[in-house]
Amino acid sequence: MHRVADLVADYLESKVQAYPVVPRISPGDVRRQLPPSPPAQGEPIDRILDDYHRVIEPNVTHWNHPGFMAYFPVTGSGPGVLAEALTAALNVNAMLWRTGPAPTELEELACDWYRQMLGLPPEFRGHINDTASISSLLALAAARERAVDLDVRRRGLAGRADVPRLTVYCSDQAHSSIDKAMITLGLGLANLRRIETDGAFRLRIDRLEEALEADRKAGARPIALVATLGTTSSTSVDPIAAMAAIARRDQLFLHVDGAYALAAGICPEFRQHMQGLSEADSIVTNPHKWLFVPVDCSLLYVRQPDLLRRAFSVVPDYLTTTETGVTNLMDYGVQLGRRFRALKLWMVLRSFGVAGLQERIRYHCELARQFAAWVEAEPGLELVAPVPFSTVCFRATPDLPPEHQDRINEQLLERVNAAGPVFLSHTRLRGRYVLRLTVGNLRTTPAHLERAQQIIRTAHSQALATYAP
Amino acid sequence: MHRVADLVADYLESKVQAYPVVPRISPGDVRRQLPPSPPAQGEPIDRILDDYHRVIEPNVTHWNHPGFMAYFPVTGSGPGVLAEALTAALNVNAMLWRTGPAPTELEELACDWYRQMLGLPPEFRGHINDTASISSLLALAAARERAVDLDVRRRGLAGRADVPRLTVYCSDQAHSSIDKAMITLGLGLANLRRIETDGAFRLRIDRLEEALEADRKAGARPIALVATLGTTSSTSVDPIAAMAAIARRDQLFLHVDGAYALAAGICPEFRQHMQGLSEADSIVTNPHKWLFVPVDCSLLYVRQPDLLRRAFSVVPDYLTTTETGVTNLMDYGVQLGRRFRALKLWMVLRSFGVAGLQERIRYHCELARQFAAWVEAEPGLELVAPVPFSTVCFRATPDLPPEHQDRINEQLLERVNAAGPVFLSHTRLRGRYVLRLTVGNLRTTPAHLERAQQIIRTAHSQALATYAP
Repeated sequence: MHRVADLVADYLESKVQAYPVVPRISPGDVRRQLPPSPPAQGEPIDRILDDYHRVIEPNVTHWNHPGFMAYFPVTGSGPGVLAEALTAALNVNAMLWRTGPAPTELEELACDWYRQMLGLPPEFRGHINDTASISSLLALAAARERAVDLDVRRRGLAGRADVPRLTVYCSDQAHSSIDKAMITLGLGLANLRRIETDGAFRLRIDRLEEALEADRKAGARPIALVATLGTTSSTSVDPIAAMAAIARRDQLFLHVDGAYALAAGICPEFRQHMQGLSEADSIVTNPHKWLFVPVDCSLLYVRQPDLLRRAFSVVPDYLTTTETGVTNLMDYGVQLGRRFRALKLWMVLRSFGVAGLQERIRYHCELARQFAAWVEAEPGLELVAPVPFSTVCFRATPDLPPEHQDRINEQLLERVNAAGPVFLSHTRLRGRYVLRLTVGNLRTTPAHLERAQQIIRTAHSQALATYAP
Repeated sequence: MHRVADLVADYLESKVQAYPVVPRISPGDVRRQLPPSPPAQGEPIDRILDDYHRVIEPNVTHWNHPGFMAYFPVTGSGPGVLAEALTAALNVNAMLWRTGPAPTELEELACDWYRQMLGLPPEFRGHINDTASISSLLALAAARERAVDLDVRRRGLAGRADVPRLTVYCSDQAHSSIDKAMITLGLGLANLRRIETDGAFRLRIDRLEEALEADRKAGARPIALVATLGTTSSTSVDPIAAMAAIARRDQLFLHVDGAYALAAGICPEFRQHMQGLSEADSIVTNPHKWLFVPVDCSLLYVRQPDLLRRAFSVVPDYLTTTETGVTNLMDYGVQLGRRFRALKLWMVLRSFGVAGLQERIRYHCELARQFAAWVEAEPGLELVAPVPFSTVCFRATPDLPPEHQDRINEQLLERVNAAGPVFLSHTRLRGRYVLRLTVGNLRTTPAHLERAQQIIRTAHSQALATYAP
């Protein structure tokens, strides 16, 4: 255990920055270095840790590297790592209050602490899931359950003349987890309406109204709206207040996906982007993204927890308990097994404190604004979307037709990432290939951003110089 | 980190056994000891660890206690705890090969190692989920997807005249996760047929045939059978080979739930219970149960991984990568975010070795057999089910009407658990209240079983002496 303590400390304090963020290996390289079959006899832990150090550590993509600016960065912070070690030693399954009293109560408490930090009203009750994919799936299951007359829990959706198509609405920028929830819940991808967005990549209310009307005319029954607070591509924010008004008017369920950006809501100045949030029926936010809690930790706040219980509570004989009036967390979702994830959230919240977390969120947004200013000043680069939080979308704009621009930007990204010290990702906006840089790792400093700028500048010249259409 | 190393070592080596397995607290006791709001400023880690030590550790139910014999025991073993600390420090999200090359390849390798240990043919491809609840949900989603003509992914199940009710079959002993999968997938609880079991709690093939015929006559379309290898109540094993023959004949998907007991398949002598297993379409087994891997780690083996990809692969622009021919684990299920769970499985398999794991499984089964023999010899107690693995179902049989017997057994269980050193659970079999004792923690020894016997004997006399009908 003390050797592992040293391995972890070495890795986080220095070694991680010595690695390229993305290892320079080819598919199969790792597996080739390991025996194809398990050992017959046990091996000493030191030999296993040697192999970890030699084969595994260098060959991960270093999500905990301060130069990781791709996707949405995450941080396995010190208190978070400590909490995970304790969690594994306790090894609690907090499916019932009785099988995890402290884990159950700490989960309720930590979720409530974070609710207060976000300025959400007390009627929102939170619980922790593994991922936003599951949190959003549960939210849409609650929406489906709210259509009481359909009795989906018992009767399902198939083979019924009395159930119309059930439609759900999100923007064309919403996350793929919404697609997966539609598939899983038996609603079908074709019944997800991806509504056109405006110039700043926010859902267009007029188009939403048109879609609702068209679907109703065609005999479908709209059940839910999904607003995104910080889309994956550009961190745009949908008009939540206007969507909430429609949801209220039409008795639709309103789910808000704030997996990444809602963390910024702990700073009052960012709440300008979050008007209407407290009128949502459910909200997902992932402390394992921008709140320095190790993966996995996704928080789902719901206004009517009873909907989740009605949908999902199944208590077989072997899981009955005699305590009354307690929360049994297994009742709120699909999964019976539940790791003690609240411990790391609680330890991170305490270790940083509200002010410490606010300071870091602000700092990341400031670093992103500085980077955006650099992009604007840099010849041949342009910003492609507003920068409300810590994500910057940009691209090179050589004087070539769009497809050639795209290819140059692809090559630019490849060159930037091949350099080693930073890792950016890409997306498409309005069909065009775009580079994304997000500041979100706890240890990212201005020096890492400067390094990114140098690398981008060099790669940009090279990509232009070597481009052969 | 070194203080945490000491906390963990102290806890596992000695302190855990000094605690009662189930803490003697009431709902709300933990929360009352903690501030209702988060701290404004960060706190020193030592103060947080002090609180952990004072408020959290004593108030969990000690799943890692060798006297934990309730439900299915689990073990946060040494190598597993070390792996979790390393996992949190790396903090990888292995959604794509590119975002976690070593994690992706180690997951494929560790699953394949375990497949070899279980004697399953190489066409089974494994991947890791958090829980068996999710693994079984994915299996039934694959079954749903195999009905190609229905195009459920795109069109869903609702509002369609061309989709009949889709029915699924399991025994009346199958786990509640199958119910939850039926709810989630939009199939509906009413379309799950819980087939009657025989005297040894195994699905009756004749009743299954009747149910299939009746459903077809009524216009439903059977899509899947679920066989349980080690039911939760009594660890009975369904007739997998006979179910496989029906599945083949009727083109049904066969899922096998071996979440707990399949681990015994690493010992050849236990494979007598597993005839037909290699004909399944999917198999779930949880190394976080009886294989000493900390929660969560559930393995799903599928014969046609392409079914999962067809159902679940959604690749938005921001997640495209250029590598070809690689496994992107996000394509095989609902969840995009994926912790690096393979590390702990790999470290546990290496640390114990195949022989070391076999030895412990055999030892647990031997301890359970000895306990069962004690029950048989003990006046006033009886075994209620066969003991194929390490779970013993028993009850007191005072000369009273059944409802009174049930109440006495409830009181017996309460007294046993109130003593502190052991924790048993209960279930109902044939409607009668039954006590369950399972041996599965790595550190359980004959001394813990002897202690359990003394406690049960004392509690039994007291329950009889004080019972007032």
